[in-house]
Amino acid sequence: MTIRDRVKNLTPYSSEREKTEIRLDKNESPFSLPKQLKRRIMTQLKDLPFNRYPSSSSEGLREKLADFHSLNKENVVAGSGSDQLIAYAVKLFSGDRVVITPPTFSMYRFYSNLAGFDVLEVPLTEDFDLRPQQIKDAIRDSAALFLCSPNNPTGNAFERKTIVDLLETGKPLILDEAYVDFSGKSEIDLIKEYDNLIVLRTFSKAFGVAGARIGYAVASETTVEHLLKVKPPYNLNSLSETIAEVLLDNHEIIQDRVEFIKEERNRIYERFEKYSYPTEANFLLMDLDAHEFLLEKGIGVRKFPGRLADKIRVTVGTKKENDRLIESLEEFIESRTSSRLSGQQGR
Amino acid sequence: MTIRDRVKNLTPYSSEREKTEIRLDKNESPFSLPKQLKRRIMTQLKDLPFNRYPSSSSEGLREKLADFHSLNKENVVAGSGSDQLIAYAVKLFSGDRVVITPPTFSMYRFYSNLAGFDVLEVPLTEDFDLRPQQIKDAIRDSAALFLCSPNNPTGNAFERKTIVDLLETGKPLILDEAYVDFSGKSEIDLIKEYDNLIVLRTFSKAFGVAGARIGYAVASETTVEHLLKVKPPYNLNSLSETIAEVLLDNHEIIQDRVEFIKEERNRIYERFEKYSYPTEANFLLMDLDAHEFLLEKGIGVRKFPGRLADKIRVTVGTKKENDRLIESLEEFIESRTSSRLSGQQGR
Repeated sequence: MTIRDRVKNLTPYSSEREKTEIRLDKNESPFSLPKQLKRRIMTQLKDLPFNRYPSSSSEGLREKLADFHSLNKENVVAGSGSDQLIAYAVKLFSGDRVVITPPTFSMYRFYSNLAGFDVLEVPLTEDFDLRPQQIKDAIRDSAALFLCSPNNPTGNAFERKTIVDLLETGKPLILDEAYVDFSGKSEIDLIKEYDNLIVLRTFSKAFGVAGARIGYAVASETTVEHLLKVKPPYNLNSLSETIAEVLLDNHEIIQDRVEFIKEERNRIYERFEKYSYPTEANFLLMDLDAHEFLLEKGIGVRKFPGRLADKIRVTVGTKKENDRLIESLEEFIESRTSSRLSGQQGR
Repeated sequence: MTIRDRVKNLTPYSSEREKTEIRLDKNESPFSLPKQLKRRIMTQLKDLPFNRYPSSSSEGLREKLADFHSLNKENVVAGSGSDQLIAYAVKLFSGDRVVITPPTFSMYRFYSNLAGFDVLEVPLTEDFDLRPQQIKDAIRDSAALFLCSPNNPTGNAFERKTIVDLLETGKPLILDEAYVDFSGKSEIDLIKEYDNLIVLRTFSKAFGVAGARIGYAVASETTVEHLLKVKPPYNLNSLSETIAEVLLDNHEIIQDRVEFIKEERNRIYERFEKYSYPTEANFLLMDLDAHEFLLEKGIGVRKFPGRLADKIRVTVGTKKENDRLIESLEEFIESRTSSRLSGQQGR
């Protein structure tokens, strides 16, 4: 079968995770849902008519999300993971290329390329901050800009005034707030002022249901109207919609866990301040090339190519998991120091 | 925000269904899952780690599907509804337009347009059969051909030899077999011979879990390899994957229900033979403009614009639902006849 060139040159997303006892590689929540919540969900799923199609645009969930953010249903679109909203968003833009600010989440490039856009990179500074002037120059002739704040995989959040500055250009800005519950600095309110802002949110991180694949986009009513045109019907299954609705009804239960993760994150950060980048997410980027070492200890963390090749991204886990991580990383640092010392002695 | 013209001109998929007591409008299964199956599913969902991402390409389900069809895992891709596989498939084709054979499922046009393809129509004959020579002429300069067999919304299945004849052109053929369990005439085995065939299947009809949004594509290993490149990771949530796996492990339980639906379909057909088109699906296309009439009786059926404007598509329901449908349709026919008669008398 004749396959178009654009596809032939793609490499598939590298698939299965390493099988490790401790999984700190995907920025998931380390916790199962609280028992009472899981019970409520199971009760509702038991009564769900599996044989019927879901609402074609998850109307019930859109209403609850609108309430949650004090917005209108017309400002919200739900999807099967916030990924899916990236796929819809890129369909709206006219132009030949989009701008991304690496190191950042790989799916902006994936979906943009699939939709036929070239990708122009304006790398973050050495401290992983934005370069506003360069970005402005780059987006002048581009279709859209992707930002992730707090940024994955660096962990830092960008300043509101820089984001506003970039919105002032009028160019579409997709702001991925997957990790915003851990920073508390959402820019969702800016959708009231900026028609060119699309904010992405997910239930996979703070809400702790990555398995259910639930995400949503928040934007102006006009932009949402267009997103709904490119969104196929029934894109979110009814089980996931049910889970999201129960979680929103009980979101205060989740908040305690967010606080716990932040405390644990700070504990790890303080322990390895010399090696850690400042973070407002549920993970830390660390200047330690310890991926293989940790793997041998049964701990999976994330490794990246290129500029981050000698670093690891570590998701904050349970207390026990973090203890094991800290212990192993101390051992790694020690072994490295002593091998260096013995190396020096050897000379 | 500047929105590309292609999107501005789209109309969103008309969304919510009419609220009716009896829902024969979406070709769903009229049955809840058998109790023992639902129980097995609930037990598995209870133990599912909601906080963890699913397998990035539903490896467990792909293996079970391969077993089910006596194929290799490398011949199967799973998705969130067979819809999603249409979206992936259209990304593979090179060219400017695709061919469809209306009246047929509206999503082939939707996804093709979204991917930038024009759509060339080669309408079915008066008996809703294919026009092979016209199709062959049309696909010569086209990227791909979509067929649905049994065809939605007409109900008839196309002949294997015609499908083979069209495959011989070498052009990509997407064959949607959503309703094939009710006809028993799958062409999946042809993927071994034809690299240009992609067969779509769904769990929304015979398997009765439209709410879970599970579908899959079956094709040659090379074609699947390309589909996996354009498929984003984690496209199927872990709850739906679990449901599909349990259903495949217990597929014999589903078979009884398929037999029941076929019997009921034949009962309705025989009762209204004069008005019904021959069908091998779980629905009937009927030459009765009874949409509004049935709606008043609390029965939802599907109405279409254009060529099918004076017809209805009726999903086969439970025994009771079908009794109500038959009764109402007889009433409709009678009222029509008597109003015609009284109209004649009035002249």
